[in-house]
Amino acid sequence: MRQLRFRDPDGDVRLGELDGDEVTAFPKQASRLDSTATFSRADVETLPPCEPSKVVCVGRNYADHAEEMGSDVPDRPLFFLKPPNAVASDGDDLTLPSGKQRLDYEAEIAVVIGERATDLDEHEAMEYVAGFTCMNDVSNRDDQQEEQNWVRGKAFDDSAPLGPVLATPDEVPEDAHIQCRVNGETRQDSTREHFIFSVPELLADITSYVTLEPGDVLSTGTPEGVGPLDDGDTVEVELEGVGTLTNTVTIP
Amino acid sequence: MRQLRFRDPDGDVRLGELDGDEVTAFPKQASRLDSTATFSRADVETLPPCEPSKVVCVGRNYADHAEEMGSDVPDRPLFFLKPPNAVASDGDDLTLPSGKQRLDYEAEIAVVIGERATDLDEHEAMEYVAGFTCMNDVSNRDDQQEEQNWVRGKAFDDSAPLGPVLATPDEVPEDAHIQCRVNGETRQDSTREHFIFSVPELLADITSYVTLEPGDVLSTGTPEGVGPLDDGDTVEVELEGVGTLTNTVTIP
Repeated sequence: MRQLRFRDPDGDVRLGELDGDEVTAFPKQASRLDSTATFSRADVETLPPCEPSKVVCVGRNYADHAEEMGSDVPDRPLFFLKPPNAVASDGDDLTLPSGKQRLDYEAEIAVVIGERATDLDEHEAMEYVAGFTCMNDVSNRDDQQEEQNWVRGKAFDDSAPLGPVLATPDEVPEDAHIQCRVNGETRQDSTREHFIFSVPELLADITSYVTLEPGDVLSTGTPEGVGPLDDGDTVEVELEGVGTLTNTVTIP
Repeated sequence: MRQLRFRDPDGDVRLGELDGDEVTAFPKQASRLDSTATFSRADVETLPPCEPSKVVCVGRNYADHAEEMGSDVPDRPLFFLKPPNAVASDGDDLTLPSGKQRLDYEAEIAVVIGERATDLDEHEAMEYVAGFTCMNDVSNRDDQQEEQNWVRGKAFDDSAPLGPVLATPDEVPEDAHIQCRVNGETRQDSTREHFIFSVPELLADITSYVTLEPGDVLSTGTPEGVGPLDDGDTVEVELEGVGTLTNTVTIP
């Protein structure tokens, strides 16, 4: 199932199932006399598919990207954080903090947590996953390269566009492609099969330190091919089974 | 005013004014027939004074602490993040992630945001501050020293005890002392007068990247004197005008 979070024409925030261009809203309340309704996707406003209390990101989780960044393959996952102000939606305009020059795309497979998770065992970790979505780990390289902790570089407002939907795990097999396209040209293309650390390994490691809450996001790193965006560019992150997260870029 | 967030004997989460050992609850609703009530502090459970969507922390903001860490004085603030799972309360027990050895205290003056803040000017920044509280920037040094981003080292569960109250700015002058005591022995003692970057400078800088929400915390760095905690220690962070944040330590 592909689940859309959206604002309906009455202004209510709702969840529903997306099938083609049709959205069937889930009932607002557990009642037989409910307000289940069907909308055309064009008539609703797409919202981020979840409301994370934090986004836990992973650096260098594909060996080819570690190589292009001139870095060693890590012996354990490299985590960093994005706060809720970083979350943006499919369709939002992306921009840099004032006075900065270089905004990079990084296409990522994002895991959405379904249940509160602490000290997970690798073998049970996938039971805590609600599904997958696309994330663009938008990066301000001007500042990132001068920072110990990537706050100016990666935690700025709208630096974590997510969407367009949450797809349940059955929709997104191990060999589902994650791609980035800029103005229609493919720049990144890989699959989970090329991860250094698997989703269960990442979840077991982070939850031994940090409790993950329902709606939290673990973004699993980016493959080879990162690069800069220019003013007016359209950047798309597509994950097979999820669909395409599309954003435009404004650099003043 | 010193504002306490607490759970009353009926189990309701409330806000109130703390005066000595007496808590006068604010009305639950804007009604003349309200449920204002007075409690003895011993009869209520102290909760963290705010519910941050993120805690923005500052490294090396006192020249003497930069020196003890063998670091240069920075030319702009060094930010890092703690997520909501890090928040703990006055009275909570602190512990390390499994298998770790060295848990350090770091007493800090924490600023609580009162209104949504983006792109603040230094001259208006204090208008967005609801008040001050104490924070202990509890640190897992085993991992911190091996990380690019301090997630395992500083974002683990309960690594940000806050409290006991939120004191309005008039209660906490520039020369109010921030102290850390371990088992009654003073280990840190300084004031905001020794900051490298003032609160308005910190707020203007971070809000040019990251929007701060009401209840968010900016923790302003720790003075000279950091050190390790042992199993069974009692650690106190006291800020004049706020009071004392007290936690005990369990290291398995």
